[in-house]
Amino acid sequence: MRTALSEQLGIEHALFGFTPFPAVAAAISRAGGLGVLGAVRYSEPEQLARDLDWMQEHTDGRPYGLDVVMPARQVRGVTEADIDGMIPAAHRRFVEETLARHGVPPLPAGGRSGWRITGWLEDVARAQLDTAFDYPLALLANALGPPPPDVIDRAHGHGIRVAALAGSARHALRHADAGVDIVVAQGYEAGGHTGEIATMVLTPEVVRAVDPLPVLAAGGIGSGEQIAAGLALGAQGVWLGSIWLTTEEAGLQSGALTGKLLAAGSGDTVRSRCLTGKPARQLRTAWTDAWEDPAGPGTLPMPLQGLLVAEALTRIQQHEAVPLLGTPVGQIVGRMDSVRGVQAVVDELTAGFERAVRRLDRIAGHA
Amino acid sequence: MRTALSEQLGIEHALFGFTPFPAVAAAISRAGGLGVLGAVRYSEPEQLARDLDWMQEHTDGRPYGLDVVMPARQVRGVTEADIDGMIPAAHRRFVEETLARHGVPPLPAGGRSGWRITGWLEDVARAQLDTAFDYPLALLANALGPPPPDVIDRAHGHGIRVAALAGSARHALRHADAGVDIVVAQGYEAGGHTGEIATMVLTPEVVRAVDPLPVLAAGGIGSGEQIAAGLALGAQGVWLGSIWLTTEEAGLQSGALTGKLLAAGSGDTVRSRCLTGKPARQLRTAWTDAWEDPAGPGTLPMPLQGLLVAEALTRIQQHEAVPLLGTPVGQIVGRMDSVRGVQAVVDELTAGFERAVRRLDRIAGHA
Repeated sequence: MRTALSEQLGIEHALFGFTPFPAVAAAISRAGGLGVLGAVRYSEPEQLARDLDWMQEHTDGRPYGLDVVMPARQVRGVTEADIDGMIPAAHRRFVEETLARHGVPPLPAGGRSGWRITGWLEDVARAQLDTAFDYPLALLANALGPPPPDVIDRAHGHGIRVAALAGSARHALRHADAGVDIVVAQGYEAGGHTGEIATMVLTPEVVRAVDPLPVLAAGGIGSGEQIAAGLALGAQGVWLGSIWLTTEEAGLQSGALTGKLLAAGSGDTVRSRCLTGKPARQLRTAWTDAWEDPAGPGTLPMPLQGLLVAEALTRIQQHEAVPLLGTPVGQIVGRMDSVRGVQAVVDELTAGFERAVRRLDRIAGHA
Repeated sequence: MRTALSEQLGIEHALFGFTPFPAVAAAISRAGGLGVLGAVRYSEPEQLARDLDWMQEHTDGRPYGLDVVMPARQVRGVTEADIDGMIPAAHRRFVEETLARHGVPPLPAGGRSGWRITGWLEDVARAQLDTAFDYPLALLANALGPPPPDVIDRAHGHGIRVAALAGSARHALRHADAGVDIVVAQGYEAGGHTGEIATMVLTPEVVRAVDPLPVLAAGGIGSGEQIAAGLALGAQGVWLGSIWLTTEEAGLQSGALTGKLLAAGSGDTVRSRCLTGKPARQLRTAWTDAWEDPAGPGTLPMPLQGLLVAEALTRIQQHEAVPLLGTPVGQIVGRMDSVRGVQAVVDELTAGFERAVRRLDRIAGHA
C-alpha cells in the first residue's frame, strides 16, 4: 500500500490511524502506518508532553502525528468560565436528571472531569501546540478544518505536514486555500464529526476539488476491501479511527464499553449533536436517546454543549453506567467483533487489501 | 468487468442500470450492461406490454430486466379507492395549498395522473407480472424486498433470476431465505428508498450475510472509480440508477428538471418520506422542503402518501413548476454535469474502472 504520499512520509502503508490512546498510535506507527494521537482530551500541556515523550520512546523512530481540534477563527481570551456562564440552567438540570435516573453518582470530592472537549479553546489548543512543536511530528491534523494561518506557518517551519478534515468539497477547497498539505475527506458513515455526504461520493469529489493535494479517505473503512475501495476512489491513503477502539492496546478490553462495541451492529450508531454541539456519529445509547428526545431541551451549540456534558461523560465512564456508556464510532462498528493487537489488525488490513486488488484484477481481466 | 454473475447472465459488463425509461434500459443492454426497466409507473398492463415490445425490438437480443415494487406481504383485494378514503382532509388541503402557493393549476379536464406509485397494489403489480412473464426477461428485481413466494416460483419457472433490494444485512438475509437469487445492497447515498447504512459499510456486510449469493453494490456509484470501489467491497456487480437521468435517451434534456440535475451538488438531495411514505432520497426542492416543515402536517405512511401526492407530482411536472420539480436521485447528482448518450456513459464508466484498477495495481506494487 504505497502511494506518493506514503513515500514522502516514509511510511510502509498509506494507512493513517487516528486514536486518543498513545499506546495505539505508537503501535500503528510501529506496524508501518502513521499513528495520529488525538490531543483533544489533554487539558494540561504537561500531560501531553508526558504522552509524547512516551510515543517518542515507543515508535522505533517511525513517524507519527498529532490531531488537534482548533477552529480556524477563534475568539481570543475567552475562558472556560466565560463559556460556562452561558449554559442555561434548564440544560444543567436535564443533565443531572438524566444521570440521576440511571443512578450515576456525582464525582468523588476533589475528582476532576478527565474527559473534556476543551481543546477548542484558544488557550488550551495553543498550549498544546507549544508543547507539540517540541516533538518531531510528521503530521499535524485538525478535526475542525484548517488551523489558523500562523499555526500552519509554524508547522511548516518545523517541517510538519498539516492535514485538515473536510465533509464537503467546498470545505476541502477552503482548506486547500488556507495552505493545508493533506485533506482528510470524512464521509457520513465515519465516527465523530461528519457531514451528510457518504465516503463513496465525497472522496472523489474532494480529490477533484483539491487536486493535486493528496486526499485521505475516511469513514466506513475498517477492512482491507474498504481500504481498496477508498484508494480506488482516488485517495492517496486511508484514515481509520473506529477500528482501533477494540484493540488490546486501547486498554478498553475489560470494560463494558468494549462489550457494547463488539455487540453493536452497523445500525447502532447515531449522528447526534449531544457530544459537542455539532453532528458527531457515536454509539447509540440511553444518553444519546435522551438528547434526541423531543421532550428534552435539545442540544446547545458548540462549544457550550461540549462543556455542558464533559463532567457527565466522566461520571458515566467512572461509574460504568452501561446503558449510558458510549463513544464516537463509525458504522464499521458492526464489523468490530474481536479484541486483537494493533499489529494483527494491520496485518489483516494489508492482506485484505491485497486480496481485494487481486480480485479486481480478475474482474478487469488482468489476471 | 466480468464476474461469475455477469457470465451467467451473458452480459459483457457486470453493470446493472435501473431506469424508468425504456429507451435508456435498451441502450444500457445494447452497451453491454443489463438494462432494468422500472415498472412502478405502469398502471395499465397494455402500456407495459407496449414498452416491453419496444424493448424486445431495440435490445439486439441482449438480456434486460424489469423492476417492480411489490411488498412481500400484500393485503389482497384492497383497491385504490379504499386507500384513498383513508387520507385525511388536512393532508389534501396541505397539498392543494402548497401547489396554489406556487401557481400550479389543476389537471386539465379529463387529464390523468401519469406518474403514480400504485405498483405496490396487489392487483396492479400482479397484472404487471402477468404481462411481464410473456417476455424473455433475464432479471426480475423488486424494490421492496423479496416478491411474494409464488411470484419467485413463477419467475424461476420462466428461468428468470430474482433480485431484491436491501438496506441492511438483516433484510438481505430475509431475502435470501425467501429464495431470491441476487441481493442489491442499496446504501444510504442512493436515490430512491434507502436505509441509513452507507454503501461502503453495507456492501461487505451484505456480501458476508448472504454468501454465496451474488450481491450488487448500489448507492453512490456513477463513475468508473466508484464501480471499482463497489466491486472491491465484494460485490459481483454494480447497480446504477441516477446517472442515467441526464442521458440523451432519458429525453429530459430539454426540460427544467435536467437543468436542476446538472446544477445540483452532492449536498442537494434529501432523504424524505414525502414521495411514498418511506424514506427515499431525492432532489431537495420547495416541495420536499414543504413536507419537512415542522409547521406542515407531516407525511402519511406507505401507501397513503404515494397516493396522496401522485396527482400533485403530475401537475408539478406538466406545469414545469421549477421550484417544486424534483426526482428521486442519489448523492452522485453532484457529478452529473453534462447530457450524453448512454453508450458514452458506459464507455466512460468502463474506462474509468480500468484506470482505477491500474492505479490500485501500482499502489499494491503489482505493476
